[in-house]
Amino acid sequence: MTVLVTYDVETTTRAGRRRLRSAAKVCKNYGQRVQFSVFECSVNEAQYEALISKLKKTIKQDTDSLRVYKLRGNREDYLMTFGQDRYVNFDEPLVL
Amino acid sequence: MTVLVTYDVETTTRAGRRRLRSAAKVCKNYGQRVQFSVFECSVNEAQYEALISKLKKTIKQDTDSLRVYKLRGNREDYLMTFGQDRYVNFDEPLVL
Repeated sequence: MTVLVTYDVETTTRAGRRRLRSAAKVCKNYGQRVQFSVFECSVNEAQYEALISKLKKTIKQDTDSLRVYKLRGNREDYLMTFGQDRYVNFDEPLVL
Repeated sequence: MTVLVTYDVETTTRAGRRRLRSAAKVCKNYGQRVQFSVFECSVNEAQYEALISKLKKTIKQDTDSLRVYKLRGNREDYLMTFGQDRYVNFDEPLVL
């Protein structure tokens, strides 16, 4: 399944930026960074549980906000993008 | 339907912050800000078209990124939140 992870952290502090980097690192193991604190991850059930577990250890409960949305259906049906789009579809042949 | 709007903009510039404020203002007319640049909006088809149209006018195509995800099913099925959650469910009775 595809999940969207969004993360809100006070990046004005060094500790906050560190947490964001850690969260990004976790998410990148499961998918792609599509915006500064938005990640699209492809996971099976076990990976989903692992992702959640790792992210829960990363965030600071009383200041940060972490949201994980399950996306259903085909990508072209549930998503519209405007402006910059750094997503790469690795399932399709890459034309270089 | 419920759509998730995520917005990436360079907030180090005054113009960028202004665009984020404008995008937030548009989104707030249709839903709630749940993170700094993440909004959950409840819309019908006509409102959805209007929302997209207004947001397209707000962003700067060559620098900003705007993503609109359609969320399907029940909220408790597609969403998990950790840490701070500023969402208010106005469909449920408010206990004060």
